[in-house]
Amino acid sequence: MQTRWQRIRHRLHNIVFESDTWAGRAFDVTLLILIVLSVVTVMLESVPSLARDRNMGPAFHLFEWAFTLLFTVEFILRLVAVRNPLRYLFSFFGLVDFLAILPAYLSLFLVGHHELAVIRILRLLRIFRILKLHEYTTAASLLADSLRESRAKITVFFVAIFTLVITLGAMMYVVEGRTNGFESIPVSIYWAIITITTVGYGDIVPITPMGKLIASLTMMLGYVIIAVPTGIVAVSLTGVTNRRGLNPQACPNCGRQGHEPDAVYCKYCGHKL
Amino acid sequence: MQTRWQRIRHRLHNIVFESDTWAGRAFDVTLLILIVLSVVTVMLESVPSLARDRNMGPAFHLFEWAFTLLFTVEFILRLVAVRNPLRYLFSFFGLVDFLAILPAYLSLFLVGHHELAVIRILRLLRIFRILKLHEYTTAASLLADSLRESRAKITVFFVAIFTLVITLGAMMYVVEGRTNGFESIPVSIYWAIITITTVGYGDIVPITPMGKLIASLTMMLGYVIIAVPTGIVAVSLTGVTNRRGLNPQACPNCGRQGHEPDAVYCKYCGHKL
Amino acid sequence: MQTRWQRIRHRLHNIVFESDTWAGRAFDVTLLILIVLSVVTVMLESVPSLARDRNMGPAFHLFEWAFTLLFTVEFILRLVAVRNPLRYLFSFFGLVDFLAILPAYLSLFLVGHHELAVIRILRLLRIFRILKLHEYTTAASLLADSLRESRAKITVFFVAIFTLVITLGAMMYVVEGRTNGFESIPVSIYWAIITITTVGYGDIVPITPMGKLIASLTMMLGYVIIAVPTGIVAVSLTGVTNRRGLNPQACPNCGRQGHEPDAVYCKYCGHKL
Amino acid sequence: MQTRWQRIRHRLHNIVFESDTWAGRAFDVTLLILIVLSVVTVMLESVPSLARDRNMGPAFHLFEWAFTLLFTVEFILRLVAVRNPLRYLFSFFGLVDFLAILPAYLSLFLVGHHELAVIRILRLLRIFRILKLHEYTTAASLLADSLRESRAKITVFFVAIFTLVITLGAMMYVVEGRTNGFESIPVSIYWAIITITTVGYGDIVPITPMGKLIASLTMMLGYVIIAVPTGIVAVSLTGVTNRRGLNPQACPNCGRQGHEPDAVYCKYCGHKL
Repeated sequence: MQTRWQRIRHRLHNIVFESDTWAGRAFDVTLLILIVLSVVTVMLESVPSLARDRNMGPAFHLFEWAFTLLFTVEFILRLVAVRNPLRYLFSFFGLVDFLAILPAYLSLFLVGHHELAVIRILRLLRIFRILKLHEYTTAASLLADSLRESRAKITVFFVAIFTLVITLGAMMYVVEGRTNGFESIPVSIYWAIITITTVGYGDIVPITPMGKLIASLTMMLGYVIIAVPTGIVAVSLTGVTNRRGLNPQACPNCGRQGHEPDAVYCKYCGHKL
Repeated sequence: MQTRWQRIRHRLHNIVFESDTWAGRAFDVTLLILIVLSVVTVMLESVPSLARDRNMGPAFHLFEWAFTLLFTVEFILRLVAVRNPLRYLFSFFGLVDFLAILPAYLSLFLVGHHELAVIRILRLLRIFRILKLHEYTTAASLLADSLRESRAKITVFFVAIFTLVITLGAMMYVVEGRTNGFESIPVSIYWAIITITTVGYGDIVPITPMGKLIASLTMMLGYVIIAVPTGIVAVSLTGVTNRRGLNPQACPNCGRQGHEPDAVYCKYCGHKL
Repeated sequence: MQTRWQRIRHRLHNIVFESDTWAGRAFDVTLLILIVLSVVTVMLESVPSLARDRNMGPAFHLFEWAFTLLFTVEFILRLVAVRNPLRYLFSFFGLVDFLAILPAYLSLFLVGHHELAVIRILRLLRIFRILKLHEYTTAASLLADSLRESRAKITVFFVAIFTLVITLGAMMYVVEGRTNGFESIPVSIYWAIITITTVGYGDIVPITPMGKLIASLTMMLGYVIIAVPTGIVAVSLTGVTNRRGLNPQACPNCGRQGHEPDAVYCKYCGHKL
Repeated sequence: MQTRWQRIRHRLHNIVFESDTWAGRAFDVTLLILIVLSVVTVMLESVPSLARDRNMGPAFHLFEWAFTLLFTVEFILRLVAVRNPLRYLFSFFGLVDFLAILPAYLSLFLVGHHELAVIRILRLLRIFRILKLHEYTTAASLLADSLRESRAKITVFFVAIFTLVITLGAMMYVVEGRTNGFESIPVSIYWAIITITTVGYGDIVPITPMGKLIASLTMMLGYVIIAVPTGIVAVSLTGVTNRRGLNPQACPNCGRQGHEPDAVYCKYCGHKL
């Protein structure tokens, strides 16, 4: 009996979690379509003109609950299919799967923001698992590796930026003052961030000549500063790409390394690798 | 008789499609000038103050039809000059040539947007064929190669950005709400894209402190994110440039190329280079 | 007696300036927390709705003075703990420590901007000393080295930008004129900086067709120009990273380092590595 | 007599054009200060509140003429000091020197824009000659070389962008129409440039959902596109930097190249270079 249960669970696991079999692939593709449709439903429901429509309003509500029920069934299947349900529950995708159905149920008991159900979009990241295209997973891991490798540099960079925008924000608060839109130091820091990242909404702008001068210097500074993360990522990406591309083999005759991935003979002594 | 027709077609092909002969070159340069003039006509015709002018309005109309007729004749010549007219028709330039004359004819039967004739500008891309300057075609193919090579990485990058802006948009919709301009989730996603690409129109801006905080974090994130495509392109461009700069020597034994500049022995067959 | 005083000073120095001992570490962590709290106090105090509050207004005032007194005591301890107080006072951190307590005292005598006390945030940079994580200090020195190495190139770049924005600003002042928001040449230069750095507030925009044309060309120019500092930093970062990643081997004959990873013989004395 | 005149001219040339002698250096530094002061005068004169001032208005006028006379004398001295005055006159600096004094004289005869005198700022570029710091001239020539080398790629890039913004502009003109601010195709192209360069003034923004969708795609495209010139410049800068840094020597024993600039012995065979 126990063994049969295990067999069922094993099969369920193959369908729900893997995508090697025909059934697993069909399940995953169906799921992706449902995720996209449910996100589109939540998005359209938020458009006033559509939500107020006599026919579409209730239809959105119906679809929303249909998706929630389907995702709930899927969530229970996943909990059943894994050997260790708790580990799944607290993994990234477990949490996302749980948060994807939570807002709808919460809206039953209290007037909540069921729009948060849009978090379902994160489930779309499973797409990379389904595609299982070597090219894409390699590219993704390459980017992830580069960003991980740059972590320390990016942290240092952000601490410096953090200090800079606070200083600039306080200066502009003193120079421009509350009457010119720089209401408080936090708002002025918000301005400094808008300016130094070159976003430039224009909702808060300097009015006094002194303020415009400081703003000009800030923009010029932001010009060089924006070069730093780009440089960091470019260098790290080059490093990771090169390391992956290098042949780790050493020549058995002269022992030298650094051969290209497609080399058959040592390029220094001509011995077969 | 048949042979004479073939000779005429061959000659026509040389004039219309090639630019090696004096006639072909003259034809192409004339065509380029006509394309630029026709695009300028469409552009000026769209300026209200000029279109309403008593003299210029009708003149634009006349020019527009003159260009359309000339391009129609040219299109027919091209169809006649090639051996396989269908293959030309469904090639990139064939479609562009067809779409360039379509809007004007359509506007006869139905009140259409003959401004779409501006698509003629795409015909300008033939300029690279005419220039036939080695330097430019090399540069263009280098850029195209780099972007093609980065395809997988850029796809992964865009899927990640796509997920991010939907999540950020939904968050801001909940935090700011309809009264502050974040009318719906799609509009909020539009805001997220404006912010993360550092465009920053300023037509939708956060009003609440919480919204400003999320916006600040989004901008900071966009700061590092913008570094990723730059890094990707830079690395890929370096790779493509270096590979082209490789040792031009071919192995005297196996004839294969692609050796590193400091290689002494062929890395494929071990023969001395 | 003298010796005992020296011992006390040595101990004080260990606590106040170093973070190797338990006491020194506790002192530094406490200090960092106080710095963050004091900056938060100054920031919140600047928010009108909070400052006007009957309870919070006086509380901010109290906290502000408490922090000032604590930092004053700390400053005196630092002056006492070092052998050469003047050298500390005129070092970067000495000046910052002094400026951190100055605004509060100045506000006693004259109605000043005690918001300048936000400069305390610069003291937060000590965090790198406390962390003493090898990874972070390496990253920071790498970034600093790269920027230092790029100094000459960035200076040349800024002189060129400076000349460019003045020329563009004067052109737009002549083309657009005072009635369209380009009030004076300095204001027009401010517009040129906003445009070329791609910040784009939108507080000053060209109205005339000619002005829009110049603005378009300026933006296109800014597109290539923004690539220059990025390229400079990327190249310099690559160089610094590579040099640090060099062969760590020292020559057994002459003891010099800095050999390339694939070197077999010392490039200075010719001895086998 | 002739010889004496030649000696005077030689001496004048040393003072006016060179900066090796004490007199030449003094002349150049004085000139730079005068240039900066004259530009500042033109800039301040354009500020309405200052120009209308009873005392400052006439003072600006006086200074303006003083600078013009001084620069006229200097221009004549330069014409006298060179052997071939015409070649100087049509060189970059000759034209700039002439244009720097022209606007003031023109304003005598016709009501002109003497603000164009701000072109004097270009004379400031002489600063690099005066500094004659090896570091700066190397940096400047490095940047110039990189941009020159990237010329073909940047041209291709701009032709592509040019085609793209015209197509996007026409699309938005059709989609949004005149009532939403997209008055004509040229204005819509101006919008496309503002968006794709991430400047984002916000003076023209899409209103319709379809327009917002196209705008979002344009921004995303601009995200990848901005990476291209950065990549081009970075790669070219790396190439130019490396080529300058490489030791051109080949080992006299094994004939291999690629040694570091400070290498004394061949790193492959140990032979003295």
